[in-house]
Amino acid sequence: MSEVKKTGGLAGIVAGETKIATVGKEGVGLTYRGYTIEDLAANATFEEVAYLLIHGELPTQTQLDTYKKTLKALRGLPAPLKTVLEQVPKEAHPMDVLRTGCSALGTLEQETSGHDQVAIANRLLATSPSMLLYWFHFAKSGKRIETASNAPSIAAHFLEMLHGKPASDLHVRVMDVSLILYAEHEFNASTFTCRTIASTLADFYSAVTGGIGALRGPLHGGANEAAMELIEKFQTADEAEKALVQMLHDKKLIMGFGHRVYKKADPRSDIIKVWSKKLSDACGDNVLYPVSERVEAVMRREKGMFPNLDFYSASAYRFLGIPTPMFTPIFVISRISGWSAHIFEQRSNNRLIRPTAEYTGPQQRAVVPIGKR
Amino acid sequence: MSEVKKTGGLAGIVAGETKIATVGKEGVGLTYRGYTIEDLAANATFEEVAYLLIHGELPTQTQLDTYKKTLKALRGLPAPLKTVLEQVPKEAHPMDVLRTGCSALGTLEQETSGHDQVAIANRLLATSPSMLLYWFHFAKSGKRIETASNAPSIAAHFLEMLHGKPASDLHVRVMDVSLILYAEHEFNASTFTCRTIASTLADFYSAVTGGIGALRGPLHGGANEAAMELIEKFQTADEAEKALVQMLHDKKLIMGFGHRVYKKADPRSDIIKVWSKKLSDACGDNVLYPVSERVEAVMRREKGMFPNLDFYSASAYRFLGIPTPMFTPIFVISRISGWSAHIFEQRSNNRLIRPTAEYTGPQQRAVVPIGKR
Repeated sequence: MSEVKKTGGLAGIVAGETKIATVGKEGVGLTYRGYTIEDLAANATFEEVAYLLIHGELPTQTQLDTYKKTLKALRGLPAPLKTVLEQVPKEAHPMDVLRTGCSALGTLEQETSGHDQVAIANRLLATSPSMLLYWFHFAKSGKRIETASNAPSIAAHFLEMLHGKPASDLHVRVMDVSLILYAEHEFNASTFTCRTIASTLADFYSAVTGGIGALRGPLHGGANEAAMELIEKFQTADEAEKALVQMLHDKKLIMGFGHRVYKKADPRSDIIKVWSKKLSDACGDNVLYPVSERVEAVMRREKGMFPNLDFYSASAYRFLGIPTPMFTPIFVISRISGWSAHIFEQRSNNRLIRPTAEYTGPQQRAVVPIGKR
Repeated sequence: MSEVKKTGGLAGIVAGETKIATVGKEGVGLTYRGYTIEDLAANATFEEVAYLLIHGELPTQTQLDTYKKTLKALRGLPAPLKTVLEQVPKEAHPMDVLRTGCSALGTLEQETSGHDQVAIANRLLATSPSMLLYWFHFAKSGKRIETASNAPSIAAHFLEMLHGKPASDLHVRVMDVSLILYAEHEFNASTFTCRTIASTLADFYSAVTGGIGALRGPLHGGANEAAMELIEKFQTADEAEKALVQMLHDKKLIMGFGHRVYKKADPRSDIIKVWSKKLSDACGDNVLYPVSERVEAVMRREKGMFPNLDFYSASAYRFLGIPTPMFTPIFVISRISGWSAHIFEQRSNNRLIRPTAEYTGPQQRAVVPIGKR
């Protein structure tokens, strides 16, 4: 049993090759296609990063202009998809909205040689914010929003649809950086799910739909929502410290800290923390950011654990006026770029992903007739 | 590269423990919870097998009666789900219908402590035939069929909804045996997908939706459809032999033969072959079964390959009047039992499934300003 525990979850097992990202080399760094996450977050936009992941190289200005124009033109939703989204009740988890919307879109715009994987990756990048926010407004108030828009980027489009008006440059930039940070992370559970599904030669939508399902879990994408639920409980840093120490004493799991692959630090946390602080300063917050910093300090002191990307993303999203249940769906919007790159890569050198299991069940036995059981 | 080929796809890698099934011990056998597939196919019904997989033991008569009554009562579809299914165009792949239907049901009947994993497994087993055939008739002719039914089993319910009248005892029994044979198969790609998704602590529907997506691919569930497309091309066994030899010469992949885990034989093939023969005899067929037997003989002679379950399932399904695009969806209806058992098992001793990758991409490099690219 302890032996299996050690090898369970495929921890440390190399499941294949990738040219897309490195995670946790020497316990720390993250690169996309050779570029460090710090460099990309400082010097690129999400559309450039999505292009990089999907096409392998950063775009030239002309390529970027074309790419952004293409994505912009794909924001509208077909009528049957709107009808599907209108059937999803307001109590539903928004991740289930995206999972269902992606699957339904796959029935309406099937993958064919004329509508290939690149076209579908573009379409899903462009429509995932539309699906989420069309449903959100319809479920909340019955309003059918227009999702086609001239907003200059995916980040701006998302915030504009959410709030019903264009967002500030600061808010758009933070949203954009957040999308960059969540875009790709090697063979994490959802990406590995996409690759496993793609390895059966299933269609593109099946792979992404599965990825969304995997990302939904609190041990994966759901962690940013769990982090928010923790920090918003407290009114002061002192209150947070007191409660957290008690939670740790009670051996409760604190979400947003530590990482399966990073051993010393999550390089994305420092980046989003700076932006969370800027947003906190800009709106005069004196609760959420100080509470977050104290929670970080206590976790470092008591458990030697570092915050991962999810932790300061929670407060940043709150400052952007984003409802907590949308935190993981934003992760989807961003990660569609990384998933797409991995589906392309899996398909380009495919082998069916099919491990084996160690059997620990009953020995062979004979069926007893039902009257004698 | 050749090294990676050898270790790719996690072939031979033990990804965890299971008490549910053994596949290919000494290259041949299949057991569910210790019972051989031959014993179960001869001496049990699909509902007994589903109960066995999900609950760990074969039911007593009283337990079986209760189980069948429970499943029967769950066949109806909620109105919003019908509306969702009506949005799916008739050109869609039926697997995408089930993927979307399962995902949508998850938004309407969410997993909670009051609607737990056992209840959802039952609901999905009972409604998957309903979803498939409700859509099928609506898309084909605009008819809204009633899916609630008093048919005595899932096999009978399926055939009754498909043909609009109760099926013969022989047809129901073959359908039932087929559901037994497809119910469970250890850590295959779709089941492993379900477990990977479940390992993030995502909800039950996310895991099954992902499984459906994985099963859709022609390297996995889609193989029975591909086998049908092959054999129905030919009018005589001689014609089949001639064409097949040419295809092998052209190095074309022939679906329905060989297996990642079984090395000598697929024990399920002999079982479904006998039933396919009975159906062939009963309807006076002198094309499909003889063609199938010849294809089997040529593949054994030319390639030393044995038929897997998918191969004779194709002709059996055709004799039951089942359209080819429904072959893989039937696999889903059956496999929901095995997937459910694996999701339960994964949850009972969970560890996040997260392998790593070998990086073969670009070395670290700096972002060049966009004007200089």
